[in-house]
Amino acid sequence: MIKVNENYLKLKAGYLFPEIARRCAAFQQAHPRAPIIRLGIGDVTLPLPPAVIEAFHRGVEEMGRAATFKGYGPEQGYEFLIQAVIDNDFKARGVELAADEVFISDGSKCDTANIQEIFGRGNTIAICDPVYPVYIDTNVMAGRTGPADDKGRYEGVVYLPGTPDNNFTPAPPNKPVDLIYLCYPNNPTGAVADSALLTRWVEYARNNRSIILFDAAYEAYISDPNICHSIYEIPHAKEVAVEFRSFSKSAGFTGTRCAFTVIPKQLKAYTAAGEPVPVNSLWHRRHTTKFNGVSYPVQCAAAATYTPEGKKQVRALIDYYLENARIIRTGLTQLGYQVYGGVNAPYIWLKTPEGLDSWGFFDKLLHEAHVVGTPGAGFGPAGEGFFRLSAFGDRENIKTALERLAKP
Amino acid sequence: MIKVNENYLKLKAGYLFPEIARRCAAFQQAHPRAPIIRLGIGDVTLPLPPAVIEAFHRGVEEMGRAATFKGYGPEQGYEFLIQAVIDNDFKARGVELAADEVFISDGSKCDTANIQEIFGRGNTIAICDPVYPVYIDTNVMAGRTGPADDKGRYEGVVYLPGTPDNNFTPAPPNKPVDLIYLCYPNNPTGAVADSALLTRWVEYARNNRSIILFDAAYEAYISDPNICHSIYEIPHAKEVAVEFRSFSKSAGFTGTRCAFTVIPKQLKAYTAAGEPVPVNSLWHRRHTTKFNGVSYPVQCAAAATYTPEGKKQVRALIDYYLENARIIRTGLTQLGYQVYGGVNAPYIWLKTPEGLDSWGFFDKLLHEAHVVGTPGAGFGPAGEGFFRLSAFGDRENIKTALERLAKP
Repeated sequence: MIKVNENYLKLKAGYLFPEIARRCAAFQQAHPRAPIIRLGIGDVTLPLPPAVIEAFHRGVEEMGRAATFKGYGPEQGYEFLIQAVIDNDFKARGVELAADEVFISDGSKCDTANIQEIFGRGNTIAICDPVYPVYIDTNVMAGRTGPADDKGRYEGVVYLPGTPDNNFTPAPPNKPVDLIYLCYPNNPTGAVADSALLTRWVEYARNNRSIILFDAAYEAYISDPNICHSIYEIPHAKEVAVEFRSFSKSAGFTGTRCAFTVIPKQLKAYTAAGEPVPVNSLWHRRHTTKFNGVSYPVQCAAAATYTPEGKKQVRALIDYYLENARIIRTGLTQLGYQVYGGVNAPYIWLKTPEGLDSWGFFDKLLHEAHVVGTPGAGFGPAGEGFFRLSAFGDRENIKTALERLAKP
Repeated sequence: MIKVNENYLKLKAGYLFPEIARRCAAFQQAHPRAPIIRLGIGDVTLPLPPAVIEAFHRGVEEMGRAATFKGYGPEQGYEFLIQAVIDNDFKARGVELAADEVFISDGSKCDTANIQEIFGRGNTIAICDPVYPVYIDTNVMAGRTGPADDKGRYEGVVYLPGTPDNNFTPAPPNKPVDLIYLCYPNNPTGAVADSALLTRWVEYARNNRSIILFDAAYEAYISDPNICHSIYEIPHAKEVAVEFRSFSKSAGFTGTRCAFTVIPKQLKAYTAAGEPVPVNSLWHRRHTTKFNGVSYPVQCAAAATYTPEGKKQVRALIDYYLENARIIRTGLTQLGYQVYGGVNAPYIWLKTPEGLDSWGFFDKLLHEAHVVGTPGAGFGPAGEGFFRLSAFGDRENIKTALERLAKP
């Protein structure tokens, strides 16, 4: 008799965004003419920049001619894209990487979800709370947790609560954990970690032989010149950290799909007997066995973000969204909300009004202002009482949303 | 201390195709002028057909304009593609499917690799031998096997040897297994299963409450009108089977990346307590949590294979490769080789000459004829003594390869 993976049955409700979509659809069906403004899911709205479109077309062209057609590419990605990534995102900031330390993929969601597979089931994981739900959900699926309690906290997981008191940047725990998920700039709080905090994390990981999974999908939104863009800017970080990057939020690739993961060769995990095994080789085996590379024209499109024109155009997208963030942040502050984030990140994190939990505020906002946001509780128990608004929307829509919120 | 998933350490050598690439690269470096002909990896060589290229460009265009830009799509794929799949690949053959029974993905490699995750670790798996190595490797990684023996057989796996005696179509085992991987038309042997055999498998699975994972990536190559294209043409198959399909080998999408998986809603797996759980919901949870949809322009390109023009052009690609297969098959037969497959599949499976094992024949062919094929042993222990040639090459190259083989 075929048995299910019963760990799946421990998962609480649906994954956050499908649940939001479901509630929106139900509301829209009941109120077909209500003009909904979506500031919920962190999805970009501006089109791909011209330099990217041009390169994308060129890639498609090549696929249509025998002389330039591409079949299976290297699972890890084409050299031309890997080299552009290394030169622009790392070398330019003083970080040296070899070509085989970068793995091109179809999304940071996939990579942050799949990476846990190469580690043993018995590892203890630590996650910031609130945070992107994929980290915890995929560990639940893998059986690395017990069941959830009433608050949605899974047994065996070390939660690191982010609160206004610690600027949503929790410190390392005072007990050893094996696998640590960090996301800076943070989704959903918009918080960033400074070098001092990252240095503490790197030291912690070296002392405990832990690994840090550093999700830097929002790196392009860092505006403060004192904030590191890569964790590898911190000395010795290559010994303890994997870094995830994406073209989704920088160049608008959410529907185009391209990202990459960096695994330095000196990064090691251990057998039960204490023998070191390079994490890079394990991921290489996983990536070549379970994945077949990113669509060639998409890789051409991604590489175009690194040309002089591409860089300028991508910068303009980011600046547009950051200005949106500023407008939301100042608008909500004027309306008396307690607001966080939105400076080094495209997310505004706000305290829900007295007497409303985060799904309650979601429903109120949807029904009264026809504005969709994301309930903080969807990002973890410590997100309860908070709410995320995304700056990825259209400028006029954002202004309209703020006007609606201003109405009593 | 961070522990590795030690199951990875049980894997024998590298994944087959990277190992072939390594040997070819070493040979090419030693003999830079040797004109290598590659009939090894099952990779297509003809460009994407014009109707596909046109739709691909149109999709890219849409991504460049605000009004038509697409961010995150549904993880399961766009309705327009799902509907085209259902109408053309299934309804046309009398199989009814609902839209939420089809999951669009970036490849059958990924889907056949990832599907095992949703099932319990304690399930017994059965695989045909020889077969596509991804099935076994991903189960080894998941800890569903013991270590490998000298012949490369993993402990605890039920191997179903395909031999000339059973036409490379093994019968169901005479003991219960939980999860069965079938691949027809078969990679690597080119064998097909007739309705009688598939009916036996469906009966077996119903009797034992097993699930069949039916990989039909080469379905488009079926030439014999009596062979089923979908396992769902067999009565009751929806209760016991998942089916995998791909645009890779039909429309040349190996470097473009699009495929789909069908999971009927009546298909169930069970908790240890015997409670049924719909496999469709489990996969939906996995797909929406760990995957973020296929690139929108790629889905446009895939949908174009179902237009009248697209269908004609895809048919022409398949006919070209099938004619290649005929040429290899008859050529090798004339040279005295014992040859199988190549009629309903783009693969020719041959017995290696007396005294040479399959890697030995690989090296001999590479060094003496500069022709690359795939050692049968790479597909499983029962593949030893056999060799796979792919019909996906260029016609002239294939003729040249046969001429070289004819030389003493």
